[in-house]
Order: sequence, then C-alpha cells, then structure tokens
Amino acid sequence: MKFNNRNVVISPKAKIGENVRIGDNTVIYDNVEIGDNTTICNDCVLGEPLNSYYSDEHYKNPALKIGANSLIRSHSIFYAGSTFGNNLSCGHRVTVREHVEAGTHFGIGTLSDLQGYITFGDYCRLHSNVHIGQQSTIGNFVFIYPYVVFTNDPHPPSNICKGPTVGDYTQIAVHSVLLPMVTVGQNCLIGANTTVNKDFGDGLVIVGSPAKAVAAVTEIKSKEIEGAMHYPWMYHFERGMPWEGIGYDEWAKTARE
Amino acid sequence: MKFNNRNVVISPKAKIGENVRIGDNTVIYDNVEIGDNTTICNDCVLGEPLNSYYSDEHYKNPALKIGANSLIRSHSIFYAGSTFGNNLSCGHRVTVREHVEAGTHFGIGTLSDLQGYITFGDYCRLHSNVHIGQQSTIGNFVFIYPYVVFTNDPHPPSNICKGPTVGDYTQIAVHSVLLPMVTVGQNCLIGANTTVNKDFGDGLVIVGSPAKAVAAVTEIKSKEIEGAMHYPWMYHFERGMPWEGIGYDEWAKTARE
Amino acid sequence: MKFNNRNVVISPKAKIGENVRIGDNTVIYDNVEIGDNTTICNDCVLGEPLNSYYSDEHYKNPALKIGANSLIRSHSIFYAGSTFGNNLSCGHRVTVREHVEAGTHFGIGTLSDLQGYITFGDYCRLHSNVHIGQQSTIGNFVFIYPYVVFTNDPHPPSNICKGPTVGDYTQIAVHSVLLPMVTVGQNCLIGANTTVNKDFGDGLVIVGSPAKAVAAVTEIKSKEIEGAMHYPWMYHFERGMPWEGIGYDEWAKTARE
Repeated sequence: MKFNNRNVVISPKAKIGENVRIGDNTVIYDNVEIGDNTTICNDCVLGEPLNSYYSDEHYKNPALKIGANSLIRSHSIFYAGSTFGNNLSCGHRVTVREHVEAGTHFGIGTLSDLQGYITFGDYCRLHSNVHIGQQSTIGNFVFIYPYVVFTNDPHPPSNICKGPTVGDYTQIAVHSVLLPMVTVGQNCLIGANTTVNKDFGDGLVIVGSPAKAVAAVTEIKSKEIEGAMHYPWMYHFERGMPWEGIGYDEWAKTARE
Repeated sequence: MKFNNRNVVISPKAKIGENVRIGDNTVIYDNVEIGDNTTICNDCVLGEPLNSYYSDEHYKNPALKIGANSLIRSHSIFYAGSTFGNNLSCGHRVTVREHVEAGTHFGIGTLSDLQGYITFGDYCRLHSNVHIGQQSTIGNFVFIYPYVVFTNDPHPPSNICKGPTVGDYTQIAVHSVLLPMVTVGQNCLIGANTTVNKDFGDGLVIVGSPAKAVAAVTEIKSKEIEGAMHYPWMYHFERGMPWEGIGYDEWAKTARE
Repeated sequence: MKFNNRNVVISPKAKIGENVRIGDNTVIYDNVEIGDNTTICNDCVLGEPLNSYYSDEHYKNPALKIGANSLIRSHSIFYAGSTFGNNLSCGHRVTVREHVEAGTHFGIGTLSDLQGYITFGDYCRLHSNVHIGQQSTIGNFVFIYPYVVFTNDPHPPSNICKGPTVGDYTQIAVHSVLLPMVTVGQNCLIGANTTVNKDFGDGLVIVGSPAKAVAAVTEIKSKEIEGAMHYPWMYHFERGMPWEGIGYDEWAKTARE
C-alpha cells in the first residue's frame, strides 16, 4: 500500500542497499547510506541538512548511515551526520538530529526527539515521546519510557552542555528527568516521575523528587512467577533480546568471548 | 482551501459516506469506512497498516470505522483495526493504533498518542499530547489533560501488559501518571503532576507522588458562582455536553431510560 | 536541496517579501504575510484556517504575519490570525494556533504546541515540546524548557480560562507545570519538575510540588567561573542575545533610552 513510488525523491548521491523499500512522499538527501533489506516508510526525510545549510552556500551534507534490516515508520526526520547499526526500528514522527551514534537493534518510539551528539549502545529502546538532550551517553539494553527527559545545562541558560550517563540494562520509567552530568550505574530501575539530581551506583531502585535509592532491584518480587525476584530483568524478559530462546546466562557466555 | 483533491489517494476498497470531504495529500487505505458528513483534513493517513504488513505477503488490512459528523485535523495517522462512534473530533498529528474502541463525541488533542487496545466510553476528551498505553479502560465523560501518561508494565520490562481503569466523569489534570492496573472511581479529580500508584474510590480529590486522597470533590468551592461547590462538574459545565441547555439532571433522567 | 518548487501551493492573496525561500510541499493560505529574507522549509502549512472555516461558508482567513529574517523548519503548522516579529526561529512540527502575538527573535522548539491567545515579549525561547495554554502572558527573555505546561482552567472542566503570567528573564526548567492564573516575577529560576500553584515575586529559586521559594537566584554559584554567581544569567550568557559582545549593562543602557 505504501510503496507506489509516488513523489519519492532520492538524491543521486545517496547509496541505497539491496531490497530496500522506500515509501511514498519520502525524500532522501545527499550522502545517505541505507543498508540492505531496510524499509523506509512514507513521508520520511532522511539526511535532513544541518543548520549551516541555510546560510553556507558551499554546504556539503555529511553522511547519514542507516543499517541493514531496519524499519523507519512514517513521517520521521533523520538529520545528516548520524550512524545507526543494523536492525534499527522506529515509530512515527521521530526527530533525530546530527551526531547520534547508535548500536544495533535500536528502537525509537513515536514522537521521540533526539537532539544530537548522543551515544547509544546496542539494543536500546526508547518508547514514545522520549527527549534526549545533547551530550548524553547511554549504555546497552537501556530502555527509556514515555516523556523522560535528559537535560544538559545545570544553570539555564549557561555555556555548559553536558548530559547524563546511564549504564547497561538500566530502566527509566515514564516522566522521569535526569539532570545534567548525573551518572546512573548498571541494572538500576528509575521509577515513574523521578528527578535524578545526583549520581547513583549499580542495581538500585531510584524514586522521588529529588531521587533517593530506596532498595536494591533484587528486592522486587516478580508479579509473574511466584516466589521469584524480577530483577535483573534479563532473566525474565527475552522478547527481541539476543538471549531469546537460550537464556541470558548462555548468551552472556558467548557475548563475552 | 484544503479540499482541492490534490494528491489524494483513496483505496477502491474504502467506503466513503455521503458529503465527506477529504483534504489534500491524504491517503485512505483498504477497508476504511467513513460516516456521512465527516471531514478528513489534509495530510492524514487513515487505515495505516499494522506491523505484520511489512513481513506478511498475504496481509489484509482490518477495518477502520470513523463515525458520521466527525472532524479529523491535518497530519493525523489512524491505524486500521479501530472503531470510533459519531462526532469524533481530533487535533493535528494524532497517532492512533489498532484496537481502539471509542464511543461517540470523542475528542483527541494534537499530538496525542493512543497505543491501541484501549476502550473509551462516550464523550471522552483528551487534550494535547496525552499518551494512553495498551490495555487501558476509560469510562464516559472522562477528560484527560496534556502530558498525562497511562502505563501498563509494572516491572519494566516484563511480560505483563495491563493498564489503568478510570470511571465516568473523572478528570485527570496535566502531567499525571497512572501506574499499571490501578483503578480510579467515578467523579474524581486527579490533580496536576500526580503519580497514581494504587486504587481509589469515587468522588475523591487525588494529588501527590505517590497519590493521596486529600478531600472529597464536593468540598471544592466554585470560582465562578459565589457560595457554590464546583463538583460534580456536570452541574456547572455544559459546553458540548448532551445536557447543554437542559441541565444535567434532566438529561440524566432521559439517558437512564 | 529543499527548495525545488515541488508541490508548493501559495495563495494569490498571500504577500511574500523579497528573497523568501519556500520549501517543497509547503502550503501558504490566504492573507499570510512573510517578511524579507525569511526561509520557510518543506511541508509547512502557514495560515491554517480557524475552526469556523469548516462550518462557515463565508469564512475569511485572518492575517498571519511572519517577520523578516525568520526560519521556520519543516512540518510546522501556523494558524491564521497571529503576528510574529522579525527573526522568528522555529523547529520541526510546531503547532501554533490563532491570536499569538510574539516579539522579535522568538524561538519555538520542535513539537511545541501554542494553543493561541498568548502574548510573548522579545527574545523568548521555547525548547522542544513546550505546551502553552490559552490566555498566558510571557515577558521578554523568558526561556522555557521541554515538557513545561502552562494551564488555564483552575477546576477542570469549568468556564474559566486564564493562564499564568511570567516576568522578564525568568527561566522555567523541564517538566514544570504552571497552574492557572499564577504570576511569577522577573529573574526567577523554576527548577525541573516544579508545580507552581501560587504567585512568586522576583529573583527567586522556585522548586518542588507544590512549589516553594528556597533561595534567591543570586545565591547560585557559577559552575563556569570560580567564585562568581551565575544569576542574573544575563551577565554570563550572551549567545544570540542583543548584548552579545558588549555586555548586558552596556546593552541595557541603550535599550532604556
């Protein structure tokens, strides 16, 4: 339904892989590279030019690389100058600015807004309407839920721009705010509506405004399995994870090699 | 201005009622049914195919039903597989996924994001930028204000998906979060920035993080009428309500018959 | 890349200044006036008709005025009936309704939603995803950060619609809510995730839910300059400000004349 080649515009300077589908009304600018078997839906803009395009007559679009086996849903805007690993999956109306470096299997929810200059590891997932400010650093398997904001200016407005750092496997629930320069360790659970204003170590349940560590994540009882603890969640959740079907320990053994 | 039949694409498998206007650049996919006297503005997508469309070569689009006398503003995306009663009204850039069942006179504000598998009664109104997670159940005359989030996973990430249930006439103010599986009764007022983490009965003022019932709604003095109480609000607000011009009691009498 | 005159529709009743660029797929309705040297990117709608357009056969679009030297990024919707001074700059997918009066050098971030009937002074900046309700009044040099909401109905739903008033130079950090009719003075800093439910004077640090004044802004130490205080911020931040290169005091002297 979506792939009728109506009003599709592709720069001759773009590199399109094998078996790529491009939806109606989509525009692909100079120096975009799309991996094999990727689907770009309708009404997308890939390789959106950077701000200097509007004033610099010698402007040259930096490369945007989208990995293989990816799916970008409709009405999304990706600026030039970012790199995404294979198996990117994204919702509608996503806005992604320049200098985002993301690993494989990255998920970006509808309406999420990545301000650029951000690093993500592998298998990160942003739900709808997540806002990540510039100069943020996010590990592997970090899931971030709706309306979470990562900030980067401690005294607005100032000339400082330094975002948060979040460790592997940490989960950040809806409506939480991470203040500039905070570091949160691995395997944490940040509860809904939390304001994280200082650093936290690994494996903590972090809640409140201002945030406090109120427990270890290993103290949270599963609601699915009688008598079990839910965290670390990798032992109880595998949909779309690389340990699907084999278990986390088995995967981790191989992954370490 | 908007209805020049420019770049409009309508599937021959869609059923379009009498006196329907369809704006420029709008696409209507297979099996969409639009009631009489409805206006679909420009740049909308109705009947957006479900995820399996991208992988299943035998994919068949489920029906999307939009009632009569509706107005869908520009740039909105409605997935296939939902049903809306008459007099739907919606803002710009709305995203509505599959398996939403909504009654009549439903209002959806600009940028709101309905994740699918949701039930709404009649006369519900979502203001701008409301996010309703899957498996939520919402009564009649429930109004939800900007940046409210309904969640559904108690231990993210887990395999549980069960959203909140909200009773008739309840109002949920800006930036509130309803945690998974909570039930809020009828005629409540949930204040701004509240985190609802447990069940509440009828007629309560609910505020704070975590939420507490701090009063009965009947204790809130009107700012419009000297000496009157404002809630239940149906006695003081009638714009667009079925009791407009006759009063709530008179309408309720008829409605019960 | 963006200015190929593809699918551009401009009403003959629009007034377009000198050296204006208009991006592909953009629509400009009746009675839009665009100042010289302004760039309107692709897929924008300027002069979006008001609600009465859908029902009034004699509808006449009110004027929308966009000042000179402005940049409106892609996919933005501006309703008819507003006025913006010179040097407007805005992100993607902005929605601006009727009766907004804004001064010069106004910045509107991606996904921000201005509900109309709002007054802004000069040099205001809204970051991404700011929601300003109707009947709000905002001074000069006010910066507002992501997911802030200005509300206007004290007892939802009621017939009262009266938003907040914010004084010059005040900064409102992410995820804060201003309740209806509150007044916040000049030179304040409202911290992240604050719920402002009452009036505050000048020069205060305001945090918490409900909000409290916890300090004077002059007590906040700079993170950039050893031994200095950061606020009033105008002495330490000048990028894009009219005092850039000359200092705030020098500019203020001239501005007062």
